[in-house]
Amino acid sequence: MQISTTALNPIIEMPQTSNRGHIMPESPIRKLVPLSDKAKERGIKVYHLNIGQPDVKTPTIAFEAMKKIDRSILEYSPSNGFKSLRKKLANYYHGFNIDVNENDIIITTGGSEAVNFAFMSCLDPGDEIIVPEPAYANYTAFAIGAGAIVKPVVSTIEEGFALPPVEKFEELITPRTKGILICNPNNPTGYLYTQSEMNKIRDLVKKYDLYLFSDEVYREFCYTGAPYISAFHLEGIDENVILFDSVSKRYNECGIRIGALVTKNVEVRKSVMKFCQARLSPPLIGQIIAEASIDTPKSYMLEMYNEYVERRKFLIDGLNRIPGVYTPIPMGAFYTVAKLPIDDSDKFCAWLLNDFEYEGQTVMMAPCSGFYTEKGQGKDEVRVAYVLEKEELAKALVVLKKALEVYPGRTL
Amino acid sequence: MQISTTALNPIIEMPQTSNRGHIMPESPIRKLVPLSDKAKERGIKVYHLNIGQPDVKTPTIAFEAMKKIDRSILEYSPSNGFKSLRKKLANYYHGFNIDVNENDIIITTGGSEAVNFAFMSCLDPGDEIIVPEPAYANYTAFAIGAGAIVKPVVSTIEEGFALPPVEKFEELITPRTKGILICNPNNPTGYLYTQSEMNKIRDLVKKYDLYLFSDEVYREFCYTGAPYISAFHLEGIDENVILFDSVSKRYNECGIRIGALVTKNVEVRKSVMKFCQARLSPPLIGQIIAEASIDTPKSYMLEMYNEYVERRKFLIDGLNRIPGVYTPIPMGAFYTVAKLPIDDSDKFCAWLLNDFEYEGQTVMMAPCSGFYTEKGQGKDEVRVAYVLEKEELAKALVVLKKALEVYPGRTL
Repeated sequence: MQISTTALNPIIEMPQTSNRGHIMPESPIRKLVPLSDKAKERGIKVYHLNIGQPDVKTPTIAFEAMKKIDRSILEYSPSNGFKSLRKKLANYYHGFNIDVNENDIIITTGGSEAVNFAFMSCLDPGDEIIVPEPAYANYTAFAIGAGAIVKPVVSTIEEGFALPPVEKFEELITPRTKGILICNPNNPTGYLYTQSEMNKIRDLVKKYDLYLFSDEVYREFCYTGAPYISAFHLEGIDENVILFDSVSKRYNECGIRIGALVTKNVEVRKSVMKFCQARLSPPLIGQIIAEASIDTPKSYMLEMYNEYVERRKFLIDGLNRIPGVYTPIPMGAFYTVAKLPIDDSDKFCAWLLNDFEYEGQTVMMAPCSGFYTEKGQGKDEVRVAYVLEKEELAKALVVLKKALEVYPGRTL
Repeated sequence: MQISTTALNPIIEMPQTSNRGHIMPESPIRKLVPLSDKAKERGIKVYHLNIGQPDVKTPTIAFEAMKKIDRSILEYSPSNGFKSLRKKLANYYHGFNIDVNENDIIITTGGSEAVNFAFMSCLDPGDEIIVPEPAYANYTAFAIGAGAIVKPVVSTIEEGFALPPVEKFEELITPRTKGILICNPNNPTGYLYTQSEMNKIRDLVKKYDLYLFSDEVYREFCYTGAPYISAFHLEGIDENVILFDSVSKRYNECGIRIGALVTKNVEVRKSVMKFCQARLSPPLIGQIIAEASIDTPKSYMLEMYNEYVERRKFLIDGLNRIPGVYTPIPMGAFYTVAKLPIDDSDKFCAWLLNDFEYEGQTVMMAPCSGFYTEKGQGKDEVRVAYVLEKEELAKALVVLKKALEVYPGRTL
């Protein structure tokens, strides 16, 4: 090892970590975990509104499938996942009028891996994707992993996070534009795209020969009676669509890490399969549980749905009643973006964990700065997940109200 | 969509998949699966010597841990894995005189993810790593994923796959060289590096300020009495070492997908953690099983070890008795590379599945072409995994002998 012998401070030369690793953002959802751990060590109760980890019980059918596992070896599974699971999933999609079969489906280690493999397979370094923002932060992380560039089209809280005008997309189109990414229903905004908006996206995809990456993980969670429109419902772009899904998220079993990448594009699947083979196989036990979970009784799904309807109303009302706070009513998923009377959401969220408590409690939220590409955006916004029961949400709302009264960076 | 209206053949313009996806190799271990599936459909018994999926039963303690899971929600876990698992794993490493603690360990989704995250965190596009070959094919896949370049140093079957001379490494060093990757005991060759060889690697790492990526997944499987030398045993390069490990492989539970990345390099860990956060968390149930499995009784480990000793002797003797076949005696892991009297291992391995059977049986092996970077190498070599019991190996050897007698591309 070469030792640079600067007087009193010998520095050992080490290889440098990658630039990719440097520019990769920390997750706005998880980066404050060390602070919340410390708060808990101090005996403070932390309400976790930062992460989409619902408190809803995993279906009994999932546990039963796990306990029933009768194998002598917990072996590798096929790189694209068990055929039986893919068949059942295809059948599930048919229920949403999505016409795919088991060969169009590749099982992934969580929905996250579907995003990662799609980007690695479709995007070269320097390629660009257009993403309406605020957007789920990990898209950017995976784009950076692939060396691709996120070109944001910013939607605003004032417009309820509706799709920005088509012209805003067209302004960003370059020869390097390879795709558009949408999340519908949207994480973090809860926005649900209308038929007219989806048609506009379809027309862009057609006109410029783009991939349409469509994250539809939250399809079961649409609250307004407005229809959920899948990218696969759009005519004439069958081969352009790459759908991301999560089974584990849908059935409150986030930990089993089972998602799917769905596409009719054979070239994309061929490429994705190479990445699948390199990581050998998705989790075995997770797949068994996921397959069983697709049969979760309708009553469970309905009860969960009703619970979210209640929580949503309760949280939105509660937030909007706090002086200086505004959030539009989310139409789907289980998140909302709220505007707060604060100087800086990163500082505020860290302060809540480090320096604040109200009756031994505090609140953890995700600063929205991490959901935008351009620096300086989302500084007065936070993502709030309504994944706790109403009693907990009620307490969290009180804590938030009290915090906003005393936060040194308050702007009201 | 722009339709190019060439006379009778209208071509719909589609975006191109990534160059990365094009140049990425298919797994030599898994790419023939469609052919073996078809052979099975024709009623043919296929002996799987292609994949490191042992037939050894998963420890009872693993199943017990799974059945005992008493949670109401299968939730996300920490991005770096459960602390209790990391602590136990640190303790396991202490048994091998590897001085690490739980903070040096990051739990990954299989050993594969450890390789992937290490490369993504340490290597930028155009960066180079030097790898003794033949080498586990998926290193190349992950290197391509990171845009990095594998510079091979070829070891030969004639020399028993010993480490090539240091000069061969030094010839390849450029300003873009970031690391050396070793696998010890080696997959696919079964070679175990000596103290003297490891010292040479250490000196190279020191002299040129490199990372040492060390895959030590097979440390429990060393058969000759020669010591297993971990990269962490080498003096003066503590911060340069990035160790890859697999818990699921060690305890015959490949399907649970639990591995680890171990490094004392804080900068590397910081970068790796960003990739960990982006994929949220490693499998929950897998972690619970892995943690329990570390307590697998010594008697199980010893029985498994003895079984592999027997299989190894049996397979190597059997292979070397087939006319024109040669394999050195592997010192560790459960693979060997055999030289066969054939024109092309890819053709031969496909032919075995497509066109050959002996008494309703055939053999599946991994063509070694996929374990070398340079085209044309490994054409007369296959990787054979001794993961089946002796009775099965005996039958597989007969089938292989018969096949080599009639294969149209035989060279004997």
